[in-house]
Amino acid sequence: MRKIYAIGIGAGDPEHLTVQAIDRLNRADVFFVLDKGAAKADLVRLRRQILDRFVTGPGYRVVSPQDPERDRKPLDYRAAVADWHRLRADVYERLIRDELGEDETGAFLVWGDPSLYDSTIALIEAVLARGTVTFDYEVVPGVSSASALVARHRTTMNQIGRAVQFTTGRRLADGWPTDADDVFVLLDAHTTFDQFVDQGMWIYWGAYVGTPEEILLSGPLDEALAERIRTTRTEARERNGWIMDTYLLRRPQ
Amino acid sequence: MRKIYAIGIGAGDPEHLTVQAIDRLNRADVFFVLDKGAAKADLVRLRRQILDRFVTGPGYRVVSPQDPERDRKPLDYRAAVADWHRLRADVYERLIRDELGEDETGAFLVWGDPSLYDSTIALIEAVLARGTVTFDYEVVPGVSSASALVARHRTTMNQIGRAVQFTTGRRLADGWPTDADDVFVLLDAHTTFDQFVDQGMWIYWGAYVGTPEEILLSGPLDEALAERIRTTRTEARERNGWIMDTYLLRRPQ
Repeated sequence: MRKIYAIGIGAGDPEHLTVQAIDRLNRADVFFVLDKGAAKADLVRLRRQILDRFVTGPGYRVVSPQDPERDRKPLDYRAAVADWHRLRADVYERLIRDELGEDETGAFLVWGDPSLYDSTIALIEAVLARGTVTFDYEVVPGVSSASALVARHRTTMNQIGRAVQFTTGRRLADGWPTDADDVFVLLDAHTTFDQFVDQGMWIYWGAYVGTPEEILLSGPLDEALAERIRTTRTEARERNGWIMDTYLLRRPQ
Repeated sequence: MRKIYAIGIGAGDPEHLTVQAIDRLNRADVFFVLDKGAAKADLVRLRRQILDRFVTGPGYRVVSPQDPERDRKPLDYRAAVADWHRLRADVYERLIRDELGEDETGAFLVWGDPSLYDSTIALIEAVLARGTVTFDYEVVPGVSSASALVARHRTTMNQIGRAVQFTTGRRLADGWPTDADDVFVLLDAHTTFDQFVDQGMWIYWGAYVGTPEEILLSGPLDEALAERIRTTRTEARERNGWIMDTYLLRRPQ
């Protein structure tokens, strides 16, 4: 039977690979790489470095299909995501059915941890539910971008006995969650932290964490720091052609 | 100068160690092991297995001090935690000052990820703030117990575009967080999920995840499943003398 691994490869630093991830990399015949946009060349290169460093076997194939385009400013956000999800499931189905022999093993290399704001598991489940191709699959957990960020800042995600929420910039724009004192923001293209300036919060921000381009900024979130992060972010995006950043907002207790 | 590592060693499976964690293990002269209670013998044995397997150097020391007792049913929860935190900082200060030579390196081995419901970073910072001993330190992120659990269940922490909250059993007992559709519960000694039976939720539960004793249960959270988890939990705790379990509660969208 075909076998699929969804492997968390950490947030950018190849040293975040786990022993289990390296073991599974070495069992794969084919690696599926689905990056796109401005970051594509850099992310494919980072994955290639990981394969070059950790795969010891004689040979493997890399398949890098075109990822469907996504409507970035849809009127109906959830419907657009569902459409995009179905188109991506078509791609995943074709990969598993057409690019793998019946007894071969394929691996999706997932940045960070496959369980946190990543669609690989949902897409694999969608293909399984279609029943058009039979396969077994395993999820290999990884160091999340959130863990990597706070480790570099030498702080924790939660305060003692308190809750921490992981959310998107889009949701945070609707207001601070009522039951959490720390909020981890992923997928924020709009520096939504601006809404929380001068409210006694701290921010721990990072871009390209774990890579040679890593930038870290943190401190009490006043207008000066917010402006510094915005400027740093804009300059870095222009310099690299893309940016991947995350941040933790803390309301100290 | 003294050097300290706070190393995330994953949630129980030695294969969750990262390349970075293994590198740092091999730079340490002394390992500090602070387990206690019924789980102590098993957890110390698991850490010993990790050191035996991954440390290739000639020798190292292991220091395993008595951890201060904690008041488990205090009238003032936060004051009791603060007291306990101060007593533990005394222990950490003594370890770093007295058990390490001036140019030596010490490592705290932290289950899961040091940033999530773990006090090691806060305690190291507390010792630094006292100014009684000079040292540098680094945090090595790890696979969290949360990531390990959902990987074994082959599900994600969050639903598409939605928020996920990490909280304690104590806080969940006060009610479902208003802004999250998934809630990850750590440190729950009282099966607080009982409060959410027959409300259209799913539960993904696991104990001893990543170890040979691993138990996984999941499904729609009705009274039958809640009872099955309670019974399984009680039997496992009696059999092993201790239990370490976590769960994700999902309100499907």
